[in-house]
Amino acid sequence: MTSIKIGIVGLGRLGKVHAKNIAKHTPGAELYAACSFIEEELEFAKNELGVTETYKTYEEMVDSLNLDAVVIVSPSGFHPEQIRLAIEKGLHVFSEKPIGLEIEDIEKTIEVIDAHPEQIFMLGFMRRYDESYQYAKKMVDEGQLGELTVVRCYGIDPSSGLESFVKFAGASNSGGLFADMSIHDIDLVRWFTKQEVSRVWAIGKNAAYPELDKVNELETGAAMMQLEDRTMAILVAGRNAAHGYHVETELIGTKGMLRVAAAPEKNLVTVFDEHGVVRPTSQNFPERFSEAFKNEMNEFIACIQEKRQPEVSAYDGLQSTKVAIACQQSVDTKQLIDLDVLVKA
Amino acid sequence: MTSIKIGIVGLGRLGKVHAKNIAKHTPGAELYAACSFIEEELEFAKNELGVTETYKTYEEMVDSLNLDAVVIVSPSGFHPEQIRLAIEKGLHVFSEKPIGLEIEDIEKTIEVIDAHPEQIFMLGFMRRYDESYQYAKKMVDEGQLGELTVVRCYGIDPSSGLESFVKFAGASNSGGLFADMSIHDIDLVRWFTKQEVSRVWAIGKNAAYPELDKVNELETGAAMMQLEDRTMAILVAGRNAAHGYHVETELIGTKGMLRVAAAPEKNLVTVFDEHGVVRPTSQNFPERFSEAFKNEMNEFIACIQEKRQPEVSAYDGLQSTKVAIACQQSVDTKQLIDLDVLVKA
Amino acid sequence: MTSIKIGIVGLGRLGKVHAKNIAKHTPGAELYAACSFIEEELEFAKNELGVTETYKTYEEMVDSLNLDAVVIVSPSGFHPEQIRLAIEKGLHVFSEKPIGLEIEDIEKTIEVIDAHPEQIFMLGFMRRYDESYQYAKKMVDEGQLGELTVVRCYGIDPSSGLESFVKFAGASNSGGLFADMSIHDIDLVRWFTKQEVSRVWAIGKNAAYPELDKVNELETGAAMMQLEDRTMAILVAGRNAAHGYHVETELIGTKGMLRVAAAPEKNLVTVFDEHGVVRPTSQNFPERFSEAFKNEMNEFIACIQEKRQPEVSAYDGLQSTKVAIACQQSVDTKQLIDLDVLVKA
Amino acid sequence: MTSIKIGIVGLGRLGKVHAKNIAKHTPGAELYAACSFIEEELEFAKNELGVTETYKTYEEMVDSLNLDAVVIVSPSGFHPEQIRLAIEKGLHVFSEKPIGLEIEDIEKTIEVIDAHPEQIFMLGFMRRYDESYQYAKKMVDEGQLGELTVVRCYGIDPSSGLESFVKFAGASNSGGLFADMSIHDIDLVRWFTKQEVSRVWAIGKNAAYPELDKVNELETGAAMMQLEDRTMAILVAGRNAAHGYHVETELIGTKGMLRVAAAPEKNLVTVFDEHGVVRPTSQNFPERFSEAFKNEMNEFIACIQEKRQPEVSAYDGLQSTKVAIACQQSVDTKQLIDLDVLVKA
Repeated sequence: MTSIKIGIVGLGRLGKVHAKNIAKHTPGAELYAACSFIEEELEFAKNELGVTETYKTYEEMVDSLNLDAVVIVSPSGFHPEQIRLAIEKGLHVFSEKPIGLEIEDIEKTIEVIDAHPEQIFMLGFMRRYDESYQYAKKMVDEGQLGELTVVRCYGIDPSSGLESFVKFAGASNSGGLFADMSIHDIDLVRWFTKQEVSRVWAIGKNAAYPELDKVNELETGAAMMQLEDRTMAILVAGRNAAHGYHVETELIGTKGMLRVAAAPEKNLVTVFDEHGVVRPTSQNFPERFSEAFKNEMNEFIACIQEKRQPEVSAYDGLQSTKVAIACQQSVDTKQLIDLDVLVKA
Repeated sequence: MTSIKIGIVGLGRLGKVHAKNIAKHTPGAELYAACSFIEEELEFAKNELGVTETYKTYEEMVDSLNLDAVVIVSPSGFHPEQIRLAIEKGLHVFSEKPIGLEIEDIEKTIEVIDAHPEQIFMLGFMRRYDESYQYAKKMVDEGQLGELTVVRCYGIDPSSGLESFVKFAGASNSGGLFADMSIHDIDLVRWFTKQEVSRVWAIGKNAAYPELDKVNELETGAAMMQLEDRTMAILVAGRNAAHGYHVETELIGTKGMLRVAAAPEKNLVTVFDEHGVVRPTSQNFPERFSEAFKNEMNEFIACIQEKRQPEVSAYDGLQSTKVAIACQQSVDTKQLIDLDVLVKA
Repeated sequence: MTSIKIGIVGLGRLGKVHAKNIAKHTPGAELYAACSFIEEELEFAKNELGVTETYKTYEEMVDSLNLDAVVIVSPSGFHPEQIRLAIEKGLHVFSEKPIGLEIEDIEKTIEVIDAHPEQIFMLGFMRRYDESYQYAKKMVDEGQLGELTVVRCYGIDPSSGLESFVKFAGASNSGGLFADMSIHDIDLVRWFTKQEVSRVWAIGKNAAYPELDKVNELETGAAMMQLEDRTMAILVAGRNAAHGYHVETELIGTKGMLRVAAAPEKNLVTVFDEHGVVRPTSQNFPERFSEAFKNEMNEFIACIQEKRQPEVSAYDGLQSTKVAIACQQSVDTKQLIDLDVLVKA
Repeated sequence: MTSIKIGIVGLGRLGKVHAKNIAKHTPGAELYAACSFIEEELEFAKNELGVTETYKTYEEMVDSLNLDAVVIVSPSGFHPEQIRLAIEKGLHVFSEKPIGLEIEDIEKTIEVIDAHPEQIFMLGFMRRYDESYQYAKKMVDEGQLGELTVVRCYGIDPSSGLESFVKFAGASNSGGLFADMSIHDIDLVRWFTKQEVSRVWAIGKNAAYPELDKVNELETGAAMMQLEDRTMAILVAGRNAAHGYHVETELIGTKGMLRVAAAPEKNLVTVFDEHGVVRPTSQNFPERFSEAFKNEMNEFIACIQEKRQPEVSAYDGLQSTKVAIACQQSVDTKQLIDLDVLVKA
């Protein structure tokens, strides 16, 4: 079986994670090409990861006749166009989340994807490929928790990055706390419940850095959602967890409850010291979801090999972005937002 | 020092807890009288707890010249009138929560209480006297968590009581899930943050017993609140925790987070068996708050002896009831409710 | 029912715990007399606890015609003689552990106790009255763990007391680490297994304070024991737990395992801060066993009232002391010690 | 860089783990040959893992001129001879533990290994390559726990395998509980403390299957060890953990304690159900040490590529086997065993 030849665009923090995983932890795949406008990143790809072709522009890379697929890890705004371009060139596409920032743009992208059903498209909702989330999903699908009534998702970045966020908050728009931080959580809500969001109310507070009020950004926010079948969803998003990278999901059902990462335990070590009984914590997403990133890339390759579409679809990307936009609208308007009257952003 | 002579009204489940605590675990207090219209309960008070006087009606009991104070554990609807009557008779009063069900009635009661500042009035928000909550409160007040941004409170009753609740749901009105279950949580939100609630949205879902829809009751509900300084509060209330009595409180601050009873651990035992690694759980409020009930009664007596008012005031009772009513209005109207335009129930 | 009048001897740290419990948390008991050669302690007993009679010598106190019982919390060396004296005066006796330091002396004491079967004698193995230990014991007795194969007991004092221990280590003999620290653990081994110890090997290491070698004291020690039915017992005793007061007990059975206080959790709070996910810890025995001390005193009074002997007997005291002595002999001789050839100390 | 060509001998349960890891998770390695006397296993290696050469006998495989290295996962008794043969053929060798069952045989093997210092030899003490153990080791080496005083290691197999063990216990000799189960734990003791074992006492009990007494096997055993610097080590080994695969290690130091896998948590999920608050558990070694097995194989390849010997040496294998033999001698003779007078088995 010949290897699937992959070109990657974007070699930032997450891009490097994907590039290494393709090169070293995805049997059946070959990291063949890399695209970045930063020379050092291309050098890294060549020297450390053995990439054969390097490109300064995405358009050139997708024109390479040697590629089977692209992995898109560029800034979010570029996703829709890059997806469309690759699909139209006949390539399989793995794109990081979000699929796009604007609904119309995403819908246009979905049309292109749908027009090429023989090509694989996968969106980087890697949590679905995390061992703990899969264990939870299995329990839910087997009915072990009964019918779900409440889903609670926390996504809180470590404090270590907050100062830098505040510094650049005015200059570049994050898309808002919920689009930036909660898109994975929104996907989890939909994945676990198989329901769409009907209404949402979102609020926030800037306490450590009140100056964020001026640039319409949030340090910490909360959203409550009613799903179509009245299941409740609660989201907390933040950028200021002193203890590390706090991604936690709770499922409350009629027969039981379940928490994924009630504490973001780094490993199996417990320390007993002058602070008390301490569990060390995960500090960032590459650490916490190290295996999930590998698993999703292996799934992408398996889908190509086995000619089947992955569980995560472009439609999932559209729906989660819609909810994130609704959250932001709720913050902006201070009102309950009905998803079906959502004004396009 | 002579003992404070106490008359108790109500000897149901919680009434018995208070009666025993007064009789056996409150040095300086004497359980002198008991009032109930159930003969067996009065026999119990006489024979098991050594009560001197027993009464069929509250009016007779508060006329006894031997009493210093009353402890009110009657059904919620009787609280305001019984409080007023005792205060006007010159007695100190400890009343179970809620202080009342209707705002006007409560306000009238507060007037009477305020007119007798030399008499002690205390409301049974016993969680404030729980060791773990006091530890948390101290950390918050010392600034160890920084400024609070999110408070999350869960109050979920064990599944064991649900069937019986459903059976009687049509016959007697619980006052609604939030009034019934969340009043302690609302008090905790106010206590920890020192802020009042501004707006609230509350939703619910009946999944195990959809027939509750017809009688306008809820099995599980969630409320999100914005406080005056934009602090966020999240409440989940329910009647269906398979694992026991789940009362949990989370405080997220700019410097750290804290959870009280992230798991409702029954004791210090961990069992390793075919189910996995298991922490047994508290099964009900008398178990979970056993010490807190003793502590609050001791505090009531200390306040009488030391002629000082307790930390928990009648005003706290008013405010928490207002928020509970707002939650129910939100469920009924499906709208965001602003507390300052709260239509009186 | 008239109160049981109690005289206490010894008002040190643990003496004060017992004195307060008798005075305030033991309905049916009255702290009537106190004996100490320290004037301040007697003043405390009179002023804070309302003691009626105070004594400088134990002999005078037990001659008081007003007493029903004595509670002995004097230094361990005095226990046997004080027990005998009180028993011979017709008093009920609660004595702190150990029942004595030398086997012959204890045996003589047991003879006196046995000669007065109508008087209650109880030894202060308070762990048996701790809620978590009782929960564990019930599980064992109900067979939920199957047959026990291993019991592991840790008793490690907090580091905070170590420096002071080292300072006075030469001057006063602690009786050795195992007699000083493990007597409760030895009792737990016997209580849970209903077996006697056959053989023991004990070792130790002084790492923080190697100078303890010179005075034949141990900072940290371990003992392994074979019981009569081949059940294994493992003890770790120490004086240097950075995180607090670490008393942990593990039971391994053919059907499951169980740990009491796998972590010495102080309360139900979990803190998430820069150290990780932290459970605060108990810092000392009065804190950890606060309720157990109350429970055992209530049991002592109940035994007097109901004319029945408590579960903890003088024989339990003898047997646990024998094992502690065997541990020390093993450390001294560097050999396996057979309990049935134990040379009397 | 050309791939390191590997031949594997033994394709049982653990053999398959290694074979898959070499084939799929070890960049730079190629699973080139496989040796087994079971035809199905060779078919599996060819069809599932793409092995080029298959062999019925080890001697033939090591004669293949295409191999760079062998991975030995055959029954323990074959290890020494197979190691020597491969080394003498100029191959690098990775051998599963134990390095051998008899001391003389191991010493002879070490001579051969030492005579070929340019060839890599690595022993499969995979726990050293587990993330949690590495985290613990780093803390120890950085002095965060101070000087170690006690090391406690539990290695208990799940109950699910016990019945089958009992069935075959008479027929094939396991080498004894400690050789079979504790060799990894003994290595951990030596690794963490950098000390050798001086004396050991080991005992055991057969409670679920007393018939094991007759075939001189143990269901559950415990060993206590004194190391050269008086550090204490405690081992519990067993075949009957109801909750799963319990491998736990505790390090007690003068500045703090640490536990690796205090509970053998399967993942980050916590379930709240009718059993209480439940953490699911690892069920077997391939699950628990899945990543560690990959890491050690990658380290083996890295050592070959970088021409350096791994941290785990043949000498470590010798020393751990000596201690396991001493444990068994202690069980057999019911005596303390001094390692320096250890009679060769």
